[in-house]
Amino acid sequence: MKLMRVGEAGREKPALLDADGKIRDLSAHIADIGGEAISPAGLARIAALDPKDLPELAPSRIGACVAGTGKFICIGLNFSDHAAETGATVPPEPVIFMKATSAIVGPNDTVLIPRGSEKTDWEVELGVVIGKTAKYVSETEALDYVAGYCVSHDVSERAFQTERAGQWTKGKSCDTFGPIGPWLVTKDEIADPQNLGMWLKVNGQTMQNGSSKTMVYGVAHIVSYLSQFMSLHPGDIISTGTPPGVGMGMKPPRYLRDGDVVELGIEGLGSQKQSFVADR
Amino acid sequence: MKLMRVGEAGREKPALLDADGKIRDLSAHIADIGGEAISPAGLARIAALDPKDLPELAPSRIGACVAGTGKFICIGLNFSDHAAETGATVPPEPVIFMKATSAIVGPNDTVLIPRGSEKTDWEVELGVVIGKTAKYVSETEALDYVAGYCVSHDVSERAFQTERAGQWTKGKSCDTFGPIGPWLVTKDEIADPQNLGMWLKVNGQTMQNGSSKTMVYGVAHIVSYLSQFMSLHPGDIISTGTPPGVGMGMKPPRYLRDGDVVELGIEGLGSQKQSFVADR
Repeated sequence: MKLMRVGEAGREKPALLDADGKIRDLSAHIADIGGEAISPAGLARIAALDPKDLPELAPSRIGACVAGTGKFICIGLNFSDHAAETGATVPPEPVIFMKATSAIVGPNDTVLIPRGSEKTDWEVELGVVIGKTAKYVSETEALDYVAGYCVSHDVSERAFQTERAGQWTKGKSCDTFGPIGPWLVTKDEIADPQNLGMWLKVNGQTMQNGSSKTMVYGVAHIVSYLSQFMSLHPGDIISTGTPPGVGMGMKPPRYLRDGDVVELGIEGLGSQKQSFVADR
Repeated sequence: MKLMRVGEAGREKPALLDADGKIRDLSAHIADIGGEAISPAGLARIAALDPKDLPELAPSRIGACVAGTGKFICIGLNFSDHAAETGATVPPEPVIFMKATSAIVGPNDTVLIPRGSEKTDWEVELGVVIGKTAKYVSETEALDYVAGYCVSHDVSERAFQTERAGQWTKGKSCDTFGPIGPWLVTKDEIADPQNLGMWLKVNGQTMQNGSSKTMVYGVAHIVSYLSQFMSLHPGDIISTGTPPGVGMGMKPPRYLRDGDVVELGIEGLGSQKQSFVADR
């Protein structure tokens, strides 16, 4: 299933995209796409509905595909080629950092370039959405705790991230730096999360063109690994790292400016398109 | 006012501690201590109530003093003596990192020492609770956005934090690593947040005995600083760093073991007491 949230920010309705590309209203059946609704039992209840019985919604703004996210966890330097382009080596175990959940926006919402920013950069990433509380889970059972996948844009301010005293979160958590969606695609639709094409364009020019198959640490490993440190809860999102082609890796580096348009997508998970606008 | 949440975990009632030390039930007036209730208007409505008109609640478990926290932001190395004891220098601007909100527990709840942990450590900290959305606010107006203060125990696993590949969040976010409370003390009761005694004992032995007056970056500076990077929302908590005396700074280092009891408190903000138990 492709689950989504449509309507104005803060007032989105839960919906699904049917096989004909029509948006079907789920609000008579679930309160929102998150927590209970994306648990195994919740997803089974949605799957039992016939989309043709659900009211059709007119296309409108698409919100983040998950509501009520408690943790937005990111994996750093998780593609060997990306690590190389940033001058870093592949870490001996996953590097994790947090992105503020207040950064989450819809997939096509305007992204604000923060005041004082000179180095706002892009990163297409595979987002993993947790569907069941996971603590100390093994790698073999890890995918049982995953509800599905989505496109995640890990927008990053490189100076804030690396030149402003310790810890990356400062350059990762700015308002609007977390476009998520358009859809939460349930895992039954994704045969192999480690074999998905990933791409990103700036003003129509391809900047990233990779695949999740070159991830250093795969989804199952990451979920298991994180669960050794903290419980993962339904609605938590894990952004699993970006392939090569970010602005900071270019010679000379290329950063986003007021008016730039970024489009990005992942095979089977849809695409996003954002205008970048200076936050005056 | 001293606002608190009492009852079993996940089912706490909002309450206030009156001048006689009695717990008064606020649940007929507000849904919880968080978001709307701790906005300036929300606090004014609670302040207009006569505590004697509110039902008295029997003492029971105390929950975290704030509900619905979206961000749990911590400031690192914010006391010069603490920076020195950890072998670090005072950073040129605040070091910020995130603690998972899933780590939040009540002030006297059991703290779990994670599996594989050898270096679980303590840190008494002044917690700042945001009451109004803050973005790009100046230092002079920053305290207008603060609802109040609380005791925050920034429990830390030093090996996870510094020896397990990049970024501190891994050693800060374990389940139960964020005891908060007992009370959210509204800012009108705290004449100067930069002159509060702070203490922590392990098994009755004083380990930390400092004051918020030796903070490098004060509360107003921190709120203003953070708001340049991201919006702060009502219910967000900022843990502002710890004074000297943590286990990793001792020679030899001293870490917490199954059965240890930690007590900590801050002048005017109450105290916490936790048993540390191995998470088997």
